[in-house]
Parts: sequence; C-alpha cells; structure tokens
Amino acid sequence: MPSKPDKLTAVPERIEADLTELSRIRDPDSNGWTRTVFSEPYQASRAWMRTRMTNAGLDVHPDSAGNLVGVLPGRNPAARPLVTGSHTDTVRGGGRFDGIVGVLGALEVVRQLIENDIQLERDLLVIDFLGEESNGFGLSCLGSRALAGELSAADLDRKDHRGTRLGDRYADFGLDPSDVLAACSGWATARRPHRYVELHIEQGPLLEERNVPIGVVTAIAGIERMLATFTGRPDHAGTMPMADRRDALVAAAEAVLTVRQQGCDAPVHGVATTSRLVSEPGSPNVVPGVVRMQAEMRSVDPGWLSAAQLRLAEEIKLKAEACGVGVDIEWSTDNECRPASPAVHETISSTADAMGIAWEPVPSGATHDAVHIARLCPMGMIFVPSRGGRSHCPEEWSDLNHIATGIQLLGRTLVELDGAP
Amino acid sequence: MPSKPDKLTAVPERIEADLTELSRIRDPDSNGWTRTVFSEPYQASRAWMRTRMTNAGLDVHPDSAGNLVGVLPGRNPAARPLVTGSHTDTVRGGGRFDGIVGVLGALEVVRQLIENDIQLERDLLVIDFLGEESNGFGLSCLGSRALAGELSAADLDRKDHRGTRLGDRYADFGLDPSDVLAACSGWATARRPHRYVELHIEQGPLLEERNVPIGVVTAIAGIERMLATFTGRPDHAGTMPMADRRDALVAAAEAVLTVRQQGCDAPVHGVATTSRLVSEPGSPNVVPGVVRMQAEMRSVDPGWLSAAQLRLAEEIKLKAEACGVGVDIEWSTDNECRPASPAVHETISSTADAMGIAWEPVPSGATHDAVHIARLCPMGMIFVPSRGGRSHCPEEWSDLNHIATGIQLLGRTLVELDGAP
Repeated sequence: MPSKPDKLTAVPERIEADLTELSRIRDPDSNGWTRTVFSEPYQASRAWMRTRMTNAGLDVHPDSAGNLVGVLPGRNPAARPLVTGSHTDTVRGGGRFDGIVGVLGALEVVRQLIENDIQLERDLLVIDFLGEESNGFGLSCLGSRALAGELSAADLDRKDHRGTRLGDRYADFGLDPSDVLAACSGWATARRPHRYVELHIEQGPLLEERNVPIGVVTAIAGIERMLATFTGRPDHAGTMPMADRRDALVAAAEAVLTVRQQGCDAPVHGVATTSRLVSEPGSPNVVPGVVRMQAEMRSVDPGWLSAAQLRLAEEIKLKAEACGVGVDIEWSTDNECRPASPAVHETISSTADAMGIAWEPVPSGATHDAVHIARLCPMGMIFVPSRGGRSHCPEEWSDLNHIATGIQLLGRTLVELDGAP
Repeated sequence: MPSKPDKLTAVPERIEADLTELSRIRDPDSNGWTRTVFSEPYQASRAWMRTRMTNAGLDVHPDSAGNLVGVLPGRNPAARPLVTGSHTDTVRGGGRFDGIVGVLGALEVVRQLIENDIQLERDLLVIDFLGEESNGFGLSCLGSRALAGELSAADLDRKDHRGTRLGDRYADFGLDPSDVLAACSGWATARRPHRYVELHIEQGPLLEERNVPIGVVTAIAGIERMLATFTGRPDHAGTMPMADRRDALVAAAEAVLTVRQQGCDAPVHGVATTSRLVSEPGSPNVVPGVVRMQAEMRSVDPGWLSAAQLRLAEEIKLKAEACGVGVDIEWSTDNECRPASPAVHETISSTADAMGIAWEPVPSGATHDAVHIARLCPMGMIFVPSRGGRSHCPEEWSDLNHIATGIQLLGRTLVELDGAP
C-alpha cells in the first residue's frame, strides 16, 4: 500500500478556479456553456486542457483518436495502468459540469498525489475523451468508442445535416481517419487497463432527493433509439371531413402518449421519451401527411427494455392503423445495458464507508465513456448530486463541496484499486 | 332577357387546352404544379392569362392591387356590373384546378356569349384575383381583400421568414404599396358590383360520394387559427424520472388529440386540424422543453365555432397543467363565416333545375375570394366534384365533363342574374 493516503484532500478553491476558467471557453453565439465536439471553442479548450494536464504533473500524449491522455508514472511501468477521466465537450446550450467534473477532478487527484509524495504502483492515466455528447452524426462517445474498438469504418461514412462525412470532420480536426480506427490497437491486449473509474455528475434528482453526497453506480442504462415515419394523406384541412382523414400527426400524437406510458409502466429505472416530431407539409390549411418521430427508451433491465420495445412498436402500429396511417419503425441500439463491475462497486462503496461518506447505489440513466471502456476492464462510476436533477441546460449545477467529496473518494478509490490484484 | 341563352354550351376541348397550357407554367424546382404568388412562374402565368383574356374578347385592365380585370361591355355601361372569377396561383406542391377552373371557366363563358351574339345588359367583369392561397406572410386572398378594403397598412408590414415586408414584395412585383391599399376605392360605392358568382372545385369528397356534378354553396366556413406555445423543462431524457418531467411534447400530443376530438364532435360541417408541431431542442437525449403548435377550426356555424374555441383552449390548458407544462394560446380569425346570398343561391339552383343538372347544397370548408367580395355585393358559388376529395396536392383532379357542366351553369346563371333587379 502506498503511504499517506489520508492526506488526499481536494482543494475546493483550485477546483473552482479550473471550472471557472474552462467555462469561459465557449461558443459566444450559443446559449449556455456550449462547446460541441470539433468546434472552435472545443479546439481552444483542448489546448487549455493540455496545458492544465502538463501543469498538474502529467506527461500528455494525445492519441490518434483525439483523446488527450495524461500519464502519471507509477513504480512499475509493466503493470496494467489505472484509468480515470471523462469528457469536456458539451451539448449545445449545455452546462459547466457534465463530464468536466470527471476530468478536472482527476487532475486534482493527480495534484494531491504529487503534493503528498504518493507514487502509485501502476501508471495512472487521466483521459479527456473526444466528443462524448451525441453530435450531428448521431454518434456519442467518439473517443472512448475508438479506444474500445467500437468505432467502425462505416461510422466514418455517417453524414451530418450539411452532408459532411464524419471521417472528413476528423480530418479537418487534424486527425487521420485511418489512425482514428487504429487507436484501439493494444488497448484490449498489451495496454489493457487494470481498472476504470469515472467521476460524473448524476444529471438526475435521486441523490438530491435522498440528501446523500455520493452515488455509486450499479449499471448504465441501455438505450434503444426509435425513428418512426408516419405516412397519412395531406388533405385540405378545410374540406376533408374528420372521418375521411388519414392524419399523420394524430397518429404520431397517439404514439407520443404510448411512448410516455411505456416509460411510466417501467418496473425498475426505465424511461421513454419522444424527443422530436417533424410534421409535413406544415401549411396552416393542410392535414399533415408525413410525420417523423424520434424517440428512445432506456433501462438498466435489458429484459424489460427488449419486451417494451416490442410492446411499443405494436401499440403504435395499431393506433396508427386506426387512423388510416402507415408507420415505418426503425430501431438502433445506442448502447446496451452495462452493469458496473461488482468488485469496483464494492471498492468504491467500502472506501466511502471508511471515509464516513454517505452514499447510495444509483442507476445511470445517462450514457458515459465508461460504457465503452467497460469492454476493456472492470469499470465503476462515482456520482455527485445535480441541483434539481437538471443537466444538459445552462442551469446545470453541482455544489463545490459535493464535487470535492467526489474527488476525494475518487482519489482514495484509485489508491485502493492500485493495490488490488 | 337577352336572346339565345340555350346556346351557351361550353367546349370541353377548348377548356382542356387552356388547363394544359396554364399547367405548364410552373416552378420546375417544386413538386406538383407550383405557382405561388409573386414567384417567377406566377408572373409568367399572369402574362399568359392577360393575353388569353384579350383573345377571349375582354378589355383587360390590371388594377392597382395586382388583380387582372377583364371587361365584357354590356348594353348599359351605367348598370352595376356582374363579376365572376377566381385565382390562378397555387399552393406549393399544388394542383391544376383549384382557382384555375373559375378563371378559365369564366373565359369560356365569355367566348360562348360572344360566339352566340349575346350581349348582356350589364358589364361582365372576369377577375383573376392576386394570390388567393395563403403565403409566407400568413395572408390569403390578397387581391380580393384589397378590393373589399380588407387589406390594411399593418398587413403590408407583415414579414415572411426571410424578413421581407409584404409591402416590399408588392413593390418588387411592380405594384406601389399605397396604390394597393387604394385599389378598393369606388368598389363599395360607384363601382359596387351587382352580383358575384365564383366557379370552383369542391376540394372535398361530398359531391363525389353523392354522385352529383354540381354543388351550390350554402356558406363559406369561418376559420379560427390557433398558435399555442407549450413551455415545459428540457431535462436529460435518460436521467429525469418520468414522474418528475415537464414534457412539452406530451402536453402538445394531448392537445393534438383534443383538437381532433373537437372537430369530430362538430354537429354541422366543422373541422379541426393541427397542421404543425415544432419541438425544441430536438436532441435525442433531451426532453422537449418548448413545443409550438399551429391549429385551426372551421365551421359554417359561427355559434359552434366560438363555443368550440373556448372548450378547446380550456381543455388544452387543463391537460398541459396536469403535465406541469404552461401553455400560451393566441387566436386569430382568418375569416368569419360567410353565408351565400339566399337570392344568388336560389338563382343558381333554379337555373340548374331548369337545365336538368343534379345539384346538392354544400358548405365550403375552404375559403375563397368570394368571402371578401361578399362584402361588396350578394355572392354565390358553384362547385364541381374533386376526385377523392383531394386538393392542394399534385393528385388534385376534376373531370372535364364536370368542369364543362359547371361552366354552362355559371354562364346561364350570369345571364339570369343580368336580368335580375
């Protein structure tokens, strides 16, 4: 066991200063604290982060997939490394904490280890993963996907609404697309990590409601996304009698309520959301002929999730049929349900107990880079409370004392895992 | 009474040739037969129409509001004129008959009158009204509104989505905006018409279902338009439990079904349609925070219409409240319910009876230039069947024999009205 682990005490002022400085690097033309992947502010923030990593005492090695990897060397370079980190990109109109707390928190852990002369047995890798948030290409977790070998050549052919290929977007960002695909090389074998722990804000209301400062994640929900196209008939809205209509928007409205009901009926943590409807033609005097609907279901119970998908599709089709409307449904799995490693969960929670920190087991309804890194090694996550459960919005907020508690628990957990076989 | 009214027999080949020639003048980049007001194809079609009017034997006087007015002089220039006509603009992705049948049909009547040496007592005015279809400025019936004095200076300040003022759009089209407003001068007094009759396609399925070639319009439905904004909270779609959400799209979906139910409950011809929903932010992982909804209700029963408006707004608000969603509703009257003149209705139907043409009284769910001209003089409308009730789409179709029957009835009706006191 390394010496003096008790002295790992996060310095709130230092964390606050980092959070504030990073939040200033944002898109001035967008709402909130916007720093989307590949954007100019994101590029600027990555340069800032690289300097910040170096100043904290890390050897920075950007990888070929666009991840910033900072290494704190351990006593045994041959041992499998510990990995922590998260992301610093945001959704459009997002906040100052989602992902950011996990990267800046890891830097504070590194500073604490160095200041207290604690050298780990293993290398500690702090990773700022590229583009975790879903983007215009419909793909989240670009950097962690690439490391886990879950980014394909077909993914690079995805296009955004301007018709730009993801591969070309990588190239514009200074990355060779074939090198991006090759970035996974070795991670599953020679460079396979020992353990991965990610600190993150909860983005939901459970911890605040239960008044505990720490959540230890049990599982990350699987996400099934649905694109449904309702095809009716674009009749004149003034002349076509109600009974003769084939109104695509009425069928889609029924579907929105069906999606909601499936979420409300979920027995464990499960949610279902219609996030977008687009109706055509949109003229004030025309019955909508086509409606496109984007929805998703999430759960930490894979059995419920697959059964709910079937129920949902069947009910949507039946109700559309009753409106004389055809419906075409496509599903895609964003990520499968990923339980945390029981061993890592146990290390985090027993460390919290030893530190006298109250905690609760919580599911993660949001996806994280941890979903992908879990393919490489045992994974665990630490959550800190989000005020009002708000996230992905300018109001997103986590209290500094909670963040500091999370960072201390992260540091101690990494020290514990360093010693685990 | 003028001589030889029996000889007024429309020539189907001539009508078909006109319909085909005009349909060729369309926007090549748009679906269907698109010729929207102020567009290049519309400008080209107006030049064609002007020549066509002159060739038919009319003295063409374009007015200062952009209407093409063709005059067939009567024996008594001091008598109030008879007016007929319709429009030749289309909706985007529209068809070849809506409005067009009324203008080309009137030309055929003029040719028949001239070929049969029938001179009316009164001047007969054939008007191709400017821009009847609703446009980017949210205003329909530009030309007939202007003649009726129902176009205001405030209307000229309306802007389309590109921020262009309607007044500037008139100027680009070669019309002085102040002259447009002045075009009504005299129409309500010295130039007040004697009677107005408009031939139009039904745009609904009633005539086809009842297998009659002619509908005599009882009233043109009033139109109340609703813009509703639902304001919820844009939470993370993976982490916010179902019970804690304030989902603007769920509230809007309830409203879509409420709108539909109001239409289905209408005791006489009444319809209610949600024509558009726009949800924000639209990200796959965010609960919609704001939804904008565009809906309308129409009826030929003004009492039902105003009561249904109140019921609808109340029910939408109650259901939104139950979702924790606020709703702001704005109403605007597109046009009030306008009954046809009982005297003109009687002239049309008794003329049809005398000609042995089967007819049915029908309401008009669509609005027409006749709504506005009815402010100036007694008004009536003649409908011919629309195949499958389809309209405002490329499939819009009316059979040539029905159109010819409608034109013959229009001609005979005008002759009858010419003699009426």
